[in-house]
Amino acid sequence: MKAIVSTQPFELKEGNLFKEIEVTHPHPTKDEVLIKVHATGVNPVDTKTRKAPLNDAYRILGFDAAGEIVACGENVSDFHVGDRVFYAGSNQRQGANQTHQLIPTDYIARIPDDLSYEDAAALPLTALTTYETFFDVFGISKNPEDNKGKTLLIINGAGGVGSIATQIAKAYGLTVVTTAGREETKVWSLQQGADDVLNHKNSLVDEWAKTERLAPDYIFCTYDTDAYFEPMIELVQPRGHIATIVAFKEKQDLNLLKNKSITFTHEFMFERAIHQKEVKQYQTYLIDVADKLEKGQYISTRTKTLEGLSVETVYEAHEEMENQQFIGKLVIKII
Amino acid sequence: MKAIVSTQPFELKEGNLFKEIEVTHPHPTKDEVLIKVHATGVNPVDTKTRKAPLNDAYRILGFDAAGEIVACGENVSDFHVGDRVFYAGSNQRQGANQTHQLIPTDYIARIPDDLSYEDAAALPLTALTTYETFFDVFGISKNPEDNKGKTLLIINGAGGVGSIATQIAKAYGLTVVTTAGREETKVWSLQQGADDVLNHKNSLVDEWAKTERLAPDYIFCTYDTDAYFEPMIELVQPRGHIATIVAFKEKQDLNLLKNKSITFTHEFMFERAIHQKEVKQYQTYLIDVADKLEKGQYISTRTKTLEGLSVETVYEAHEEMENQQFIGKLVIKII
Repeated sequence: MKAIVSTQPFELKEGNLFKEIEVTHPHPTKDEVLIKVHATGVNPVDTKTRKAPLNDAYRILGFDAAGEIVACGENVSDFHVGDRVFYAGSNQRQGANQTHQLIPTDYIARIPDDLSYEDAAALPLTALTTYETFFDVFGISKNPEDNKGKTLLIINGAGGVGSIATQIAKAYGLTVVTTAGREETKVWSLQQGADDVLNHKNSLVDEWAKTERLAPDYIFCTYDTDAYFEPMIELVQPRGHIATIVAFKEKQDLNLLKNKSITFTHEFMFERAIHQKEVKQYQTYLIDVADKLEKGQYISTRTKTLEGLSVETVYEAHEEMENQQFIGKLVIKII
Repeated sequence: MKAIVSTQPFELKEGNLFKEIEVTHPHPTKDEVLIKVHATGVNPVDTKTRKAPLNDAYRILGFDAAGEIVACGENVSDFHVGDRVFYAGSNQRQGANQTHQLIPTDYIARIPDDLSYEDAAALPLTALTTYETFFDVFGISKNPEDNKGKTLLIINGAGGVGSIATQIAKAYGLTVVTTAGREETKVWSLQQGADDVLNHKNSLVDEWAKTERLAPDYIFCTYDTDAYFEPMIELVQPRGHIATIVAFKEKQDLNLLKNKSITFTHEFMFERAIHQKEVKQYQTYLIDVADKLEKGQYISTRTKTLEGLSVETVYEAHEEMENQQFIGKLVIKII
């Protein structure tokens, strides 16, 4: 089987240091299954991880995948060879930039029959990030009726997370306002279901005022947390909740949270994978994603597909991520 | 009527700049009642406010009170002259260091018949701070059964907030671990109901390890947030929640929250008073406090009483607060 690996941290400007290698066909043990990976989604976390120090001889990136189960460990009873599944996987394991990948069943869920592997591979990491932020962090109700009248602001509505987060928020009854900087990102965000799109080139607070809406109950930051830290605090409701998935460059003044008793969370989708606590929650959330895809409540956020797993397609995908102009999700079709 | 006021911000080392003045007997309008203040509790917020710039000709401190209703505004129907009540009040209004105080009924609740005004005046601000932190911030269940097995760490168990917070947490089914630095504060904290008391002179993480308990689900910081910021993050459960009521001196690195998806809140009891949103929640919480006092589930945290409202007793109370050695709550008995 084939894998695209890196053996050292590197910047793209150093050239294409990805390598294609042949690795031994692995065998699933215990609760693992072996997946024949059909498609892998690309995320900003790939580029960040590429630049981080390596602990192993090589690293396989790719934290979004869809594929077919081709072998099951001895304890696996709820999945079978031939099942079509999707998953984000774990940053504590090798990723999906390979033709076959071992993964414990807690991380996977079946996909609808009529959903392509490419469409499915666009979703797990961004959808899991959103589910965790909405349900574990914000604590919003799973009953959409309870969420009527609650408003969520998503910073960067057209990105990978912002796109599916908009769909998920609408499915769960929230009013959703997003930000976008270009006409095409604005149009895309409206297509995802945004009720309003603010121009991120203007002051966030001024743009919000134009909507004449009550201040947002929740703000989900998916872009440049440092720049938005103070405007988000100024904007959010008293006792509102702000979450980010983008690491800070600078230290921040937490006293700014005091006047409105604001709550702040740094959400990280791999937290469960790292701490091995409630890992099966990944599967529970992915089952809901699959269910809503089947019902047409969500549609894939895939906007571009690179053909074939190679050092060239992986490098190109990383270039796209680092450009920070990408709309929706980029997928590499492996077979 | 008499009031103890300050007309400028000042440090205690500048001398006793409090002044006693006679003010006109106010009349309650609309939803206000006029309280004959019998006792006022003293809190660190008094000393912080004393040092802050003034907007008015004078400022009356005192954000904890118990007293008797002596007049009602025209819209008041649920309270009556003669009712014995307690309240924290609002930092947007004058405080309780006066013999008579106007307060809207949303802020007040009746106290049990057999509870003294001094005992009652020790509680509102610290109890409200705790109720907001537990129910609005941490989102713990109001059903104690649901909280069995959940653990709360309180930084500084013997302070005003730490003492009543320990009682409240126990009443609501939580396991409570506190910190204390002296034998007498440790004994006091155990009396409040703490299951374990850590020695705050040692490493928090090492002290916790000695208890052999699972990591805390919630950490409530009531002392020196800067010093405890990193140890709290190291200690709390993945997806745990940290709240503080003590402002920071330094900016902090919020990326430290990421690995465990930690949530952080800067709780501020006057948030509702400032933003005039859900103010009646103060009353709702105080009714529960009074109910549990009546049932003997809470006992007053008053440990010392100064006799009579004067510039001397108010100054002495501020000295005690700034010493930061005080156990439980200090009350000034007005009549």
